[in-house]
Amino acid sequence: MYNERNQKLCAGFEAAGIDALLVTSLPNIMYLTGFTGSTAMILVTPTKRWFITDFRYHTQVAQQVDPSFELVDNTAKNLIKVVLPSIPGADGLKRIGFESTNVSYDMWKMLSADENHEWVPTKAMVEYLREVKSEAEIELLRNAVLLNEVVWQEVLGTLNENTTEADLVAEIEYRARKRGATKTSFDPIVASGANSSKPHARFTQDRIVPGTPLTFDMGMLLNGYCSDMTRTVFFRDCPPLWEKIYGIVKLAKDSANAAVKPGKLGKEIDAVARQVIIDAGYGDKFGHGLGHGVGLEVHEGPRLAQVAEMQLRVGNILTNEPGIYLPGEGGIRIEDMFVVRADGPENLNTLSTDLQVVG
Amino acid sequence: MYNERNQKLCAGFEAAGIDALLVTSLPNIMYLTGFTGSTAMILVTPTKRWFITDFRYHTQVAQQVDPSFELVDNTAKNLIKVVLPSIPGADGLKRIGFESTNVSYDMWKMLSADENHEWVPTKAMVEYLREVKSEAEIELLRNAVLLNEVVWQEVLGTLNENTTEADLVAEIEYRARKRGATKTSFDPIVASGANSSKPHARFTQDRIVPGTPLTFDMGMLLNGYCSDMTRTVFFRDCPPLWEKIYGIVKLAKDSANAAVKPGKLGKEIDAVARQVIIDAGYGDKFGHGLGHGVGLEVHEGPRLAQVAEMQLRVGNILTNEPGIYLPGEGGIRIEDMFVVRADGPENLNTLSTDLQVVG
Repeated sequence: MYNERNQKLCAGFEAAGIDALLVTSLPNIMYLTGFTGSTAMILVTPTKRWFITDFRYHTQVAQQVDPSFELVDNTAKNLIKVVLPSIPGADGLKRIGFESTNVSYDMWKMLSADENHEWVPTKAMVEYLREVKSEAEIELLRNAVLLNEVVWQEVLGTLNENTTEADLVAEIEYRARKRGATKTSFDPIVASGANSSKPHARFTQDRIVPGTPLTFDMGMLLNGYCSDMTRTVFFRDCPPLWEKIYGIVKLAKDSANAAVKPGKLGKEIDAVARQVIIDAGYGDKFGHGLGHGVGLEVHEGPRLAQVAEMQLRVGNILTNEPGIYLPGEGGIRIEDMFVVRADGPENLNTLSTDLQVVG
Repeated sequence: MYNERNQKLCAGFEAAGIDALLVTSLPNIMYLTGFTGSTAMILVTPTKRWFITDFRYHTQVAQQVDPSFELVDNTAKNLIKVVLPSIPGADGLKRIGFESTNVSYDMWKMLSADENHEWVPTKAMVEYLREVKSEAEIELLRNAVLLNEVVWQEVLGTLNENTTEADLVAEIEYRARKRGATKTSFDPIVASGANSSKPHARFTQDRIVPGTPLTFDMGMLLNGYCSDMTRTVFFRDCPPLWEKIYGIVKLAKDSANAAVKPGKLGKEIDAVARQVIIDAGYGDKFGHGLGHGVGLEVHEGPRLAQVAEMQLRVGNILTNEPGIYLPGEGGIRIEDMFVVRADGPENLNTLSTDLQVVG
């Protein structure tokens, strides 16, 4: 599996004008090697691969890293002066790519002082591969989605008139761990009343307000892969205005979902949901993109957004998460994850998105 | 408070050869403005300050950011072409500093294409100020430390023969939230048996092993400030070898603590603890530095380590955390946080570090 991923990566070297790629982004290193530690860099060429990290991680490297990588015991700051001159085979390299969004100015200064190689900025070479998931990855993502649903339903069962937003966040994290998640894939959002009008609300110590939207946006990290789901429910009662808005958001989501096909542009799918919301008179109340890729990171490519020019590919896994937010009053968002299949979308979530009044 | 911090920062501009500083590190932006959001940059000059972020954060800026900053509605990618030409007062700037560890190659390419300003790499200008805490900050850190102790003691009370490492992690996070923490300041470490021999162990689903070290390394984020504490206890029974090693680690910690004074070098304090461990025959089993600063981030300056050349200053807050690790068997670490006062250290932790057998 890792061998195949590295070979696919190297197939892009000629077009990028490089003989080798220095990978410094940790999720990319995980994807190419299996390593989950926090300090490493790798150098990949079509014929040889090196894994550079210090003694603290040698045991972990032996346990996790694909054996096609040769361990080099060193640290990033010695890369040019010690590591490259010392590894046999690296001396033939001329143009070495680096990840330009990931490398700092300080590190670039070090690379640019190297007289023996030309260092070439590259963009998203590994990220682009990561966007297409294998069947094995799809199953891992499905498991993270299903765990998320189990935890959310348990948490919903704890709701009573004294429950605060903070209580629900605590329950999500506790039950996530108890059911085997590594952790939540991001800090859970639980927002009630006016707080739900912020798409990225921070939880408060306030009690859940009956008769207002109660938004849960949460995800699990399980076996290295992330999930991400949003449900907006109503505690005790749902007033007619919110029932109407809920229906609009659900229609926007379902319409966008029906439009998913390989080859469609991200902005085309976004536009389908957006048009439903515009037609209902709430166009200016949907201030974010429709969705994003999910995998080793909870936010990765591709995107569903007004500016997303990329085509959907078979094996992409994305969120579909339209919302309508009335400042100071509240907001509704519904989010599922889906796989792009040859014949259309396969929803990974199994729970209903019908309006739900709880408690 | 923010005004004073910015003035102190600007007092260093002449030595750095800059007229202004572009701050892109989020903890540094929080320190200088009060902003806790996730997208912003600020431009600070001795006479004027600008806060640059997009519409999603304007409400938060109004609530949080010091009024000495003028809001500029824009995004990072427009900095050179739109933002700087449009803000009155910025046109007189010649040399603008940027944070060289924080700025990516891509961002630097944008800065270096600017024909109207010279962009100057700077290092740790804000971080250096942050290392010295005010009395108000010390009280915030003390509260985070005390909350950590309360949560740990509660968690210890849940321990029984069926408890797993994962259970204890779940309890830490749950009780942290329930007692008002924003979250834990890092993923808690709970490690029993051989797992405790890794300084940065990941928790497992295994039960706590009686008669072996059980290490808790945990912290709280409360009102923006972090805490960090380690205790190693024994479940049911402590064998003589571990009792001996525990005593060595405790002596190392106490000896280092007694050596703390303003003006001492970080490496001198590290050496005191290290010598105790070397003298006891375990010098090669203490493979990390003695401590690090704590504040808005759980790891910041200054450091207590073999390579730490900086002098301790009054108002520094650091951890003191020696350890001895026997690979495959287990490890002991004890960690408190202290303030450097004019006359020596003030420990922020209140709990005993005596050997404790629980359950």
